[in-house]
Amino acid sequence: MVNRYLSLVSLEEAIETIMTRCPPERRVVRIPLLESVGQVTAEPVFAYYSVPEAHLSAMDGIAVRSEDTTGATDKKPILLDSAVRVNTGNVLPPGSDAVIMIEDVEEHEGRYTIRRPAAPWQHVRPVGEDIAESEMAIPRGHRIMYHDIGALAAYGITDLAVSSLRAGLIPTGSELVPHGTRPGPGQVVESNCLMAAAHLRSLGVDAILYPPVADEQDAIRSAISEAVESCDLVIVSAGSSKGTKDYTARIIEELGEVLIHGVSIKPGKPVIVGRINATPIIGLPGYPLSALTIIREIITPVIRMAGARPPDYGTITAELTRTLASDIGTDEFVLMTAGEVAGRMIATPLSRGAGVQMSAVRSNGVLRIPRDSEGAETGQSVEITLSVSEETIRSGLILAGSHDPALDRMADLLAPLPVHSAHIGSMGGVLALKRRHCHAAPMHLLAPDGTYNLRYLERYLPGEEVTLVCVAEREQGIVSREGLSFEDITTGSFVNRQKGSGTRMLLDHLLKERGIDPGSITGYTREMTTHLAVALAVKSGEADTGLCVASAAETAGLSFVPIGTERYELAIMTEDLPDPRISALIETIGSDSFRSILSGMGGYRTGETGTVQTLHL
Amino acid sequence: MVNRYLSLVSLEEAIETIMTRCPPERRVVRIPLLESVGQVTAEPVFAYYSVPEAHLSAMDGIAVRSEDTTGATDKKPILLDSAVRVNTGNVLPPGSDAVIMIEDVEEHEGRYTIRRPAAPWQHVRPVGEDIAESEMAIPRGHRIMYHDIGALAAYGITDLAVSSLRAGLIPTGSELVPHGTRPGPGQVVESNCLMAAAHLRSLGVDAILYPPVADEQDAIRSAISEAVESCDLVIVSAGSSKGTKDYTARIIEELGEVLIHGVSIKPGKPVIVGRINATPIIGLPGYPLSALTIIREIITPVIRMAGARPPDYGTITAELTRTLASDIGTDEFVLMTAGEVAGRMIATPLSRGAGVQMSAVRSNGVLRIPRDSEGAETGQSVEITLSVSEETIRSGLILAGSHDPALDRMADLLAPLPVHSAHIGSMGGVLALKRRHCHAAPMHLLAPDGTYNLRYLERYLPGEEVTLVCVAEREQGIVSREGLSFEDITTGSFVNRQKGSGTRMLLDHLLKERGIDPGSITGYTREMTTHLAVALAVKSGEADTGLCVASAAETAGLSFVPIGTERYELAIMTEDLPDPRISALIETIGSDSFRSILSGMGGYRTGETGTVQTLHL
Repeated sequence: MVNRYLSLVSLEEAIETIMTRCPPERRVVRIPLLESVGQVTAEPVFAYYSVPEAHLSAMDGIAVRSEDTTGATDKKPILLDSAVRVNTGNVLPPGSDAVIMIEDVEEHEGRYTIRRPAAPWQHVRPVGEDIAESEMAIPRGHRIMYHDIGALAAYGITDLAVSSLRAGLIPTGSELVPHGTRPGPGQVVESNCLMAAAHLRSLGVDAILYPPVADEQDAIRSAISEAVESCDLVIVSAGSSKGTKDYTARIIEELGEVLIHGVSIKPGKPVIVGRINATPIIGLPGYPLSALTIIREIITPVIRMAGARPPDYGTITAELTRTLASDIGTDEFVLMTAGEVAGRMIATPLSRGAGVQMSAVRSNGVLRIPRDSEGAETGQSVEITLSVSEETIRSGLILAGSHDPALDRMADLLAPLPVHSAHIGSMGGVLALKRRHCHAAPMHLLAPDGTYNLRYLERYLPGEEVTLVCVAEREQGIVSREGLSFEDITTGSFVNRQKGSGTRMLLDHLLKERGIDPGSITGYTREMTTHLAVALAVKSGEADTGLCVASAAETAGLSFVPIGTERYELAIMTEDLPDPRISALIETIGSDSFRSILSGMGGYRTGETGTVQTLHL
Repeated sequence: MVNRYLSLVSLEEAIETIMTRCPPERRVVRIPLLESVGQVTAEPVFAYYSVPEAHLSAMDGIAVRSEDTTGATDKKPILLDSAVRVNTGNVLPPGSDAVIMIEDVEEHEGRYTIRRPAAPWQHVRPVGEDIAESEMAIPRGHRIMYHDIGALAAYGITDLAVSSLRAGLIPTGSELVPHGTRPGPGQVVESNCLMAAAHLRSLGVDAILYPPVADEQDAIRSAISEAVESCDLVIVSAGSSKGTKDYTARIIEELGEVLIHGVSIKPGKPVIVGRINATPIIGLPGYPLSALTIIREIITPVIRMAGARPPDYGTITAELTRTLASDIGTDEFVLMTAGEVAGRMIATPLSRGAGVQMSAVRSNGVLRIPRDSEGAETGQSVEITLSVSEETIRSGLILAGSHDPALDRMADLLAPLPVHSAHIGSMGGVLALKRRHCHAAPMHLLAPDGTYNLRYLERYLPGEEVTLVCVAEREQGIVSREGLSFEDITTGSFVNRQKGSGTRMLLDHLLKERGIDPGSITGYTREMTTHLAVALAVKSGEADTGLCVASAAETAGLSFVPIGTERYELAIMTEDLPDPRISALIETIGSDSFRSILSGMGGYRTGETGTVQTLHL
C-alpha cells in the first residue's frame, strides 16, 4: 500500500518526466473538411483535379484568338467574325487564347469591333492557375485555417486525416453525484472532470468523460484499464492523496508504473504521474482549485507540446496590493484580479482556499510565487500570467470594500464592462482607495456624530478630492430563525462580521451605546465576510442571531428585525470621474433599472440612490 | 436595375456603416453548461445552493468542540470523549466546530488524546465558504472560461443563457456544384460560403449554410427573404458585381436598402452592404480571394464588435523581398509569406490572382498597402498582420527558386516545421539567396561547360561560403500526348517555362546547340511557372509539346521522351548550417524515406541524393 508521497519533484521535472517517459501520442482520424479548422493534418493533401480544369475567362468580355487582333488601332479598328461573348468564369471556346473586356468592345448584331490588339493569354485564367491535378496542397503537420477550407473544398477534398488526441477522464469518489443532481449532505457534484473536459475540448482534444466511480478499488481499476485501452492520455480525478481510500496510486502501480507522486506546487501537491504501457496517466487532487492548478500548469503544457494551441494572453507587470506569504521550496500559484487604476496596473490576490471555486471565477490572472521565495510584499512589482486579454484587464472596474448583493446586480447592469469586487470591509476599502488600489470603495461607516462615511474619509484621506455616490439607504437588522431582536444577542449564540466591516462597526457602536460587553456574546469572535454567510450560518443553526442586511435574511428565508438604515455609498477619487468606466458606474447607479432592482430585492430605500457629493477633504 | 457601383467608400466607412446602420444583434439561447466555453452569458447566473451546504472537514482528522480542547499541552494532554473521526470533505457532526489533523492525534480504542488546543473553526470549510445560496456567480456579459464550468457545475447549473449570433450563408451562381461533387467544365465547387461558415463557427457563431441557389432572381429573392427571417446577419456569396446576372444588389434594394455597393479595396471591391429590416446583409464578391478579403477585413471586425474573439496574432515588421505596385485610392491587401532569415524578418508577396486560393494556403500573413501609397519597394520595412503565431513564423524554412514536386514531399517529411516555397525559377533563387531572402535556393542551372549550378554561384555570389545539397539527378524531357521528341518542337505548338527557370535555360542551351531560332517555335513566349502546369497545358491540347520533369508527365498521364538528367540541388549559405531548420532539411534529404519517395515518383536518380558540397566561391 502506497501511504506516503514519493519524494516531491518540481513542476518542471513533472512535465519533463511526462514528455520523456510517456508523451501522449496522437492518433490519426478522418474528419469532415468543414469541421477541421484548427486541426493538424496527419497526411499530405493532394488536389483531386486542376483548378481551373479549363482555361477560363477572367473578365466579362469577348474571347478571341490573339493573332486575329494584331494591328487594331483607333484609326484601323478590326471587326472580328469569330469572337464569342463570355462572362467571368466561362470556359474559353477552343482556339481562343485571350479575352477583351466588354468595355473595350463595340457590338453590332453579334459581331465585335476592337481598337486595340489583345496580348496572348490576357484576362485568361489558365488550366491549373490555382493548383494542378495531384499537386500537394498541404503537407502533413499543417494547422488548418479557414481559408484552407475554401481552397481544399475547391480542390475536391471532402474529408481529412488529422492527428487527434483522445483523453479519458475518470471521476472517482463515493461522495460524487453527477452534474445536474442535487447533492445531499456531504455529497458534491463532480466538477473537476467536467472542467477538464470542457477545457480539453476547447483545445481540440477528443475528451471522453467516464461516469463517476465509487471509492472501490476494483471499480476504479477496471475504469482505468478500460480508459487506457482506448485513450492517449488518462486523467483520474481524486484519490491521489494518502488517505485510506486513495487508491489511484496503488492501482497505477499494479497496472503500470507510478513515476511521480507529489509535486512541490501549491495548490495541487498530491498529484500522481504514471504510465500504463505507453499511456500517460495523471491523478488529479480532489480540491477544485488544486485540480485546476494541475490542469493549467501540467496538463495544458503537455497538451501544448502534443500540438494543441491553448490561448496565450501573455503577462503583465502589476503592483501587488496585499502581502502574500508562501513556503520556501514550493511553487505557489495564486489566482489574482488585475486591473488598471490611476494609470498603474495593480493585482489583488483572491482567496487561496482550495475549495473556493469563486476565486477562479473572479480571477483574470495568476501569480506564481517561485519556490525560492518566501512571498511578495504589498507594493512589490509582480508578473501576472493573464487568462483574458490585456485589453479586457485594462477595461475592468475594481471595487474594494464592503460587500452587498446590490453590487453584484450593479455589475450585471454594467456588462460587458468587467467588474471586480474585493470583499474586504468598509475600512479595507477606504485604505485601498487611499493607496489607489481600487476605483471605488463601497462603504457604510457610522461615525459617533451619527453621520456616515464622511468622517472616515476626512480622517484617512485628508486633503484629497473625493466623490461619494449613494447606492442606497440600507436596512441592517437582526437575522434569526425565530423573530429574535437585538435584545436577544446575548442569550443565544451570535455570528459576527470581520473586523473593519461597517456592520461590525455598527454592532460595536450599538453595544457601546447600550453598555454591553462584547465578551458576553457567544460567537462574537466568529467572523463571516458577507451578509449572506451570516444569514446562512443562522439558517443552518450554527448561530441563533446575526447582524445583516434585509436582502440576505430574505434570501435565506429568515426573520429580520430592523435596527435602522445606514447610508451605503461608493467613495471615488474625484479625478477619476472623467474615466469612462467611472461615468458608466455612476450612470448605472442613477438608472431606473438599478432602482427598480433594489426595490425588488427588499431592504433598500432608494430616495438617495444616485446622489453625488463632491468632497474637499 | 443597378448596373453601376455606387460611389466607392473606404474600408473604415464600410465597417462604420454596418455598425451604425444595422449592427448585428445577438439573440439569447440556452445551451448546456459543458458546451459554453468561450460563450458570453446573456443573463446573470446565481448559485442554486450554497457550497458547501454544511460545515465540512478540510482535513483528515477528528472533529471536536474547540472549547473541549482548551489548555491541552504536551505536559497536560486531554483525552477527548466525544471526538469523531472525519476525512476531508465529511460533514462535521452537530456541535463540533473544529478539526484536528490526524497527525496531531493519538488514538486508543476509539478515543483520542490531543496535546494542543484547537482554535474555533480551524480546518473547517464553513457553509457558503465558496458561494452562498442565490448569490450571483457570474453577471451577464461574462465570457465563460473552463474554470467557470467547474464552479457552475458545482453550484447546480446545468445550462446557461448565452448571447449568440446566427449568420445565414447563401451561395448563389448557376456554375456552382455542392461540395463533394466533381465539377464539370465551367463549373466550380461552392467554397466561399463553406470557408465563411468554417470561420464563423470557429468564432462561436451559429452559421447556417443554405444550399446553392441558381442565378435566378426569384430563387435568390426567396432564399434571402427566408434567411433574413431567421438570422442576425446574412451573407450572400457572389452576384455582387455589375454583370447581367448579378442580382444581389437589386434584390436587396427591393426588400430593403443597399447602403454600400463597392468598397475601395483590392481584392474585394464589388462588395455590397445592405439591410433588410434591421438585419445586415453582405454581398460577397465571387472570386475566392476577394471573398476571403471581405471575410477577413469587414465581416471579422464586425463579428468582433458583436462580441466574438477572433484570434489575434499581432503584427511583425519585415523587409519586403519584391517590389509591389498598387493603385492610389485603393487599400490593397496582399497575402504574404513571412519568415526569419539570417536574423532578419523578411516577407515575400504571394500571387495576387484573385482565383489563386493556394496563395491563401501558403500565406502566413497579410500586407495592407494603404490607399495613399503607390506600393512598396524591395527592401522596404513593411508591417505584416500575422495569421499564425510569431513563433510559427520564426520557425519556418524559406525556399526560393526552381520548383519540383519533390520539394513538396520533402516539406511533408519536415512536418511540423513549416516550409514555404516561392516558385521563382533557379536564377530567381540564386538572387534571393544572395539577398538573404531565403534559406535555400533549389536550382538546376546548366553552364556551357556542362556542369550544373557551381558556375552560377561563382558568378553571382563571389567570395561567399555556400553549401550545395543534391536533391536528385532529375530527368528532363519532352512531354506530349503522342510520343513526340525534341525534334518535334518546331512543328506543333510548344509551351515554355518562365525566364530564369533552369528548364528554360536548358531549352535555350539545346536550341543554341542545334542552331534553332526561338522565334520559329510557336508558343515559345507562352510561360508556365511549374512543371505540372506545362504537362497539363499539353494534356488539355493547348500545346503539343513542352519541356518538364518526368514526374509531371507521369502525373498528367502523358508521354515523356528524356533529353538527359540534370543536377537538382539546394544552395545554402554555409553559415546557416548550424541552424536547426537547416540541419533538419539536410537530414531529411539524406533520409531513406525521402529516397524511397523519389524512387516511387519516377524520373529521379537518387545516387547523388543527399551529397553535400562545401564551396568557397
